[in-house]
Amino acid sequence: MPQIRQNIATKEWVIIATERAKRPEEFAKKLEKKSLPAFVESCPFCAGNEAKTPPEIMRIDSNGKWQVRVTPNKFPALSSEGKSVYSFEGLQRNITGIGIHEVIVETPLHNITTALLSVPEVENVLQAYLSRYISISADARIEHIIIFKNHGEAAGTSLEHPHSQLIALPVVPSQVRHRVEEAMRYFDDHGECVFCRMAKEEIESKERVVLESKDFVAFLPYAAFSPFHMWILPKRHAASFSEITRNELSDLSYVLRTVLAKLYWGLENPDYNYVLNSAPLDTGSRYLHWYVSIVPRVTKSAGFELGSGMFINVALPEKSAEFLRNVKIPE
Amino acid sequence: MPQIRQNIATKEWVIIATERAKRPEEFAKKLEKKSLPAFVESCPFCAGNEAKTPPEIMRIDSNGKWQVRVTPNKFPALSSEGKSVYSFEGLQRNITGIGIHEVIVETPLHNITTALLSVPEVENVLQAYLSRYISISADARIEHIIIFKNHGEAAGTSLEHPHSQLIALPVVPSQVRHRVEEAMRYFDDHGECVFCRMAKEEIESKERVVLESKDFVAFLPYAAFSPFHMWILPKRHAASFSEITRNELSDLSYVLRTVLAKLYWGLENPDYNYVLNSAPLDTGSRYLHWYVSIVPRVTKSAGFELGSGMFINVALPEKSAEFLRNVKIPE
Repeated sequence: MPQIRQNIATKEWVIIATERAKRPEEFAKKLEKKSLPAFVESCPFCAGNEAKTPPEIMRIDSNGKWQVRVTPNKFPALSSEGKSVYSFEGLQRNITGIGIHEVIVETPLHNITTALLSVPEVENVLQAYLSRYISISADARIEHIIIFKNHGEAAGTSLEHPHSQLIALPVVPSQVRHRVEEAMRYFDDHGECVFCRMAKEEIESKERVVLESKDFVAFLPYAAFSPFHMWILPKRHAASFSEITRNELSDLSYVLRTVLAKLYWGLENPDYNYVLNSAPLDTGSRYLHWYVSIVPRVTKSAGFELGSGMFINVALPEKSAEFLRNVKIPE
Repeated sequence: MPQIRQNIATKEWVIIATERAKRPEEFAKKLEKKSLPAFVESCPFCAGNEAKTPPEIMRIDSNGKWQVRVTPNKFPALSSEGKSVYSFEGLQRNITGIGIHEVIVETPLHNITTALLSVPEVENVLQAYLSRYISISADARIEHIIIFKNHGEAAGTSLEHPHSQLIALPVVPSQVRHRVEEAMRYFDDHGECVFCRMAKEEIESKERVVLESKDFVAFLPYAAFSPFHMWILPKRHAASFSEITRNELSDLSYVLRTVLAKLYWGLENPDYNYVLNSAPLDTGSRYLHWYVSIVPRVTKSAGFELGSGMFINVALPEKSAEFLRNVKIPE
């Protein structure tokens, strides 16, 4: 019998269609043995091609060479200049599209993938996220910051060189606002943060845990909306990513890198997105809890998902978690 | 300067990224000249292969041959037997996955596409939707019914034979509930249905209208979330699709068929989804308004959309509408 599960934090329902269940390894795509060169002349993100990007915002160096570089997006979705002006006329509401759109180049090398970076290299990437997040938070025009990564074509990118993006918005998206409302309602009813409770219960039950570290737990939510959909939750309550400590950042690098490597080796380099979900800048610090969500693109969303916002997950989260726990990462 | 537009009915924000704007014809995919046979031995939906589907629920005949057939989905996401039992234990909330999942085979022919059916043939399909919608509405276990179509691989189907699907749920998805809430709020503030108001304003301004008929208007919403994202709104207020009259059904067949043909000829058979959005069965009839939304899959959603629920539309809705208005459909 299928189940319809609710994610208690987001209040979203998911159909877990066990009749259609596949074995976890059936989601693996054939690992492409295509070998890429370390440097590609036309790639704007390769070391040596720095002139092909807009002027650099920051870099993290090692031995005089950059390891991570942040630049404005050459084709930004929002304009960084100007004020956010509201124009509300009858049914037509708009705001001038100001905001910030940056690219984080994760490595000078073209032919590597984030899952194969070393933990210190991933830490450099997270350090760049944090720096940019904190700087941009000071911009009074900005209400919400999203940091995300698209890996592979099914995940919406055609650029091979490992990179992530940051978009800072002058509005809070309605989906995010609904999450804040749900988190507040839970807090009002129970006197605690729903994500803190969830982290505790997942760690106790272990059923859906992929990896637990000192400061984080990576698990498939009870109502995971697709196979291998994971959350990495900090154990310590904090609404904003900007509150992460140096030690936690190190620990998160280890967890993120391990989880991505498990996907890489267990599912043969699947396309995926990850998103760093932090509270809107103006939210009370008690209610929401920041986290990273990772969504491997092993299935497609279609008309049902569009029309309902609900997902059909053809794998049991407990089975997917067990599979990932058992994936060995080669040394 | 990009704009951030809000859909006043759903309250969702969309970035209209004009800096990245493409010309409408750039979204066209190369029309595949692959010629398919009218009958495929292994296709469960072809005439002659009726035994390959679960037992038929209904059919629409003409001259003793079926034109449209409805059957249970062979791999249903939900089980049609049993009761919906709520199990709420701590953070783990679930309902037994009961519901209804049916397939509507739109034509006996394998090698045609919905956009190329005749208007009376499309009317048969809509007639089947209506019959099933009304029958299933009487099932006390069901709270919400979604009818949708996935055309092409990017839209989530690998079956070529034209078909659509119906899923009836024992819960109201949270996205749908938020829409009901927004519609009620608008009604409270303004004493009218927001969709009725929208239909009137779109018809007056004409800027985003693709096609207006006696009973319907097809247009790109002011905050269309992707290029060529369209809504077909009935002019007469009705919350539920089940309230459609016979004449309106005929008129809708003409509008839906014309709009799909414009996509087919103008964008060279793009993959698309459409969804018939009707109010949850228990909603007050004054607030919500049923409609069809059509989403050509000409761009991909990625990490930003996943993390925010917001879309980046790289085309100006007014330009996309003008392009579609001008597409000529060969006789």
